[in-house]
Amino acid sequence: MSRNIVIGVMGPGDSATEIDIKNAHELGKLIAQEGWILLTGGRNVGVMDAANKGAKEAEGLTIGILPSNHTRNVSDAVDIAILTDLGNARNNINVLSSNVIIACGIGLGTLSEIALALKNKKPVILLSEHQESQQLFKKLAPDLIFIATNTHTTIKQIHNLLKNAK
Amino acid sequence: MSRNIVIGVMGPGDSATEIDIKNAHELGKLIAQEGWILLTGGRNVGVMDAANKGAKEAEGLTIGILPSNHTRNVSDAVDIAILTDLGNARNNINVLSSNVIIACGIGLGTLSEIALALKNKKPVILLSEHQESQQLFKKLAPDLIFIATNTHTTIKQIHNLLKNAK
Amino acid sequence: MSRNIVIGVMGPGDSATEIDIKNAHELGKLIAQEGWILLTGGRNVGVMDAANKGAKEAEGLTIGILPSNHTRNVSDAVDIAILTDLGNARNNINVLSSNVIIACGIGLGTLSEIALALKNKKPVILLSEHQESQQLFKKLAPDLIFIATNTHTTIKQIHNLLKNAK
Amino acid sequence: MSRNIVIGVMGPGDSATEIDIKNAHELGKLIAQEGWILLTGGRNVGVMDAANKGAKEAEGLTIGILPSNHTRNVSDAVDIAILTDLGNARNNINVLSSNVIIACGIGLGTLSEIALALKNKKPVILLSEHQESQQLFKKLAPDLIFIATNTHTTIKQIHNLLKNAK
Repeated sequence: MSRNIVIGVMGPGDSATEIDIKNAHELGKLIAQEGWILLTGGRNVGVMDAANKGAKEAEGLTIGILPSNHTRNVSDAVDIAILTDLGNARNNINVLSSNVIIACGIGLGTLSEIALALKNKKPVILLSEHQESQQLFKKLAPDLIFIATNTHTTIKQIHNLLKNAK
Repeated sequence: MSRNIVIGVMGPGDSATEIDIKNAHELGKLIAQEGWILLTGGRNVGVMDAANKGAKEAEGLTIGILPSNHTRNVSDAVDIAILTDLGNARNNINVLSSNVIIACGIGLGTLSEIALALKNKKPVILLSEHQESQQLFKKLAPDLIFIATNTHTTIKQIHNLLKNAK
Repeated sequence: MSRNIVIGVMGPGDSATEIDIKNAHELGKLIAQEGWILLTGGRNVGVMDAANKGAKEAEGLTIGILPSNHTRNVSDAVDIAILTDLGNARNNINVLSSNVIIACGIGLGTLSEIALALKNKKPVILLSEHQESQQLFKKLAPDLIFIATNTHTTIKQIHNLLKNAK
Repeated sequence: MSRNIVIGVMGPGDSATEIDIKNAHELGKLIAQEGWILLTGGRNVGVMDAANKGAKEAEGLTIGILPSNHTRNVSDAVDIAILTDLGNARNNINVLSSNVIIACGIGLGTLSEIALALKNKKPVILLSEHQESQQLFKKLAPDLIFIATNTHTTIKQIHNLLKNAK
C-alpha cells in the first residue's frame, strides 16, 4: 500500500497579507503538480482559500478541515470538506493528518498549528520573513523547523523531508 | 461549484458479523461505482475495513476519520487518513462530514453515530435487521430514519435522499 | 488520595418532559446531599438546568461541560463552566469524566451519551420508562445498564456501583 | 449569580525547569488563597502537578483537563479530573474555560495554549524570562499579553484583569 502524501498549508485567514496570498496560491499549484494532496483549514478566506484555488488550477485534490458544522464558509476550491465542529481544536487534526506542514505567513491560529505540529514531531517549513517566529521556533525545535524564502525552495524542502521519512 | 458527495458507512469493528462485512464490502463497491466518496472510521477491522476494500475494488476514493494520532491501525484501503486523536469524539465528525449515513450493522459506537447524525438532522439508513434499533430510531426520528434490507435498496435510498436535499 | 466522586446526569434539553425535569431536580439535590459532585452538559434548559438547580439547593458542587465557547447559555446553577467549543463531541467528555452516568429521560443527545458511556465501559442507570431504549441497551450491554424507577432507587444503584468499583 | 473565577496555569510537563516548578507551586498556593479555582492540564508532572500541589496546600479547588480517557497520569492534587480523550486538542478547552491564563514557563504545548488563548481574546500573563516568546507575543497581541517577573506581580495582574473584565 502507498497511502497518499498530504501536505498541510496553514496560514492567516482574514489577516493574510498580499504576499501570503500570492505564496499560498503558488504553493497550492505546485503541491498539486507534484501529485500531493493539499490539506488546509478549508475556509473561504486568506491562505486557505488561495492555496485551494491554486491546487485546483493544477487539478489537484483538496481537503478542508473546517472548524464549523456547516459548509457556509467553505472555500469553493475544497473538494472534500471535513466538518469537525471543533472550533480551533481542529488545528490539531490539521497537523496530525499532514506529512509536512507549511506555515505560509503568521497569525495566532497558525502559531498554534506550528506549536502543535512540533509537539507531535511533525516537520514544519516556515515560509515567512517573520523574524520573531523564526527565532522562537529555531530555538525550541531546531531539528524540525525549516525556513524557506520562496515557494520553489519550499517544494524542494518537502521532497527532502519526505525522502528522509521513508 | 459542485462539492463532492460523501457517503458515510458506519458499523461495528471487531464485533462485526459476517453479514455486516459482506454488506459493507458490497456497499463500498456500489458507492464507488456511483462516483461518490466513501467516508468511514478508517480502522483496519470490521465494517470500516470491508467498505474501504470494496470501494477500492471499484477504484473509488476513500477517506478514513481515525480516532488515533498515528496510522498503525489504518485500513490499507484508506486513501486519505484524517488523524483526529479524539477517540470516540471523532464519531461526530464522521456524521457531520457525510451527506448520508449508512449504519451497516449495530454496535455501541455505531449507535452513538446514528444518534449524533439524527441530532444534526442528517438522514440515516439502517442496513440491519436489528429490531430494537429500528424501533427506537423510528420512534425518535421518523422523518430521518430509513430501513434498507439489502445494499441495492440502500443505494436507491441514497439517490432519493440526495435528490430531495437539492 | 481520594479523588472526588462525580455523577453525570444526562437528559434532554428543550424536549425534556415535566417528569424528566422533576426527576432531574430531585436527583441533583440527592446527589449533592451524598457529597458527590454533579456533572452535566451545563446549559440553561431541561434536565441539565433542573439537576444543577437541585444540587445548588443542597449546596452541592456543579460542573457543566458546555458545547460552546461562551457562557451565554450556561445554567445559573453551574459553579464551574468548562467551555469546550466541541459541539456534540463534548458528549464523550461528559461520560468519560463521570463515575456513574444517569440518563434522566431520553433524547438523541442522551442516546449518544448512553452509547458512548457503555462503549467506554461506564455503568449507566436509565431513569426513564422509555421501553425501546431499555430493550435496546439491555440487549447490547446487559452488564452495564441498570433500570431505575425513581430517584431514590437511582441513588441506591449509584451506591452499589461505587462499592463494586472499589 | 456570581460564577466562580477560574485561573488557568499552563506550562511544561516533563521539560519544566526548577524555576518553573517553584513558580507554579507558589502560584497554585496564591491562587487558592485568593479563593480562585485553579485549572491546569491535570497531569502528574511539571508545572501542572506543582501548581495543583500548591493550591491544595492552601485548600483550594483544583480542576484538571486531561488529554487521556483514564486517570493513571492524573496529579494526586487534582480534585476534579475532566477526562477529554482529546490529546493536545484539549489545550483549547484549557484556555476557553479560564478567565485569565498564566504561562508559567515555555514549551511547545504551552505555546499552543498561549496562541489559542490570544486567538480567543483571552488575556495571558507570561511568567517567564523567555525572550523570544515575549517578543513574539508582544508583537502579535500587544493588548492581551502581560509580562510578570514573579508570582506576586502575577497575582496583582490577575486582579487588574478581572477588574477590567467586569
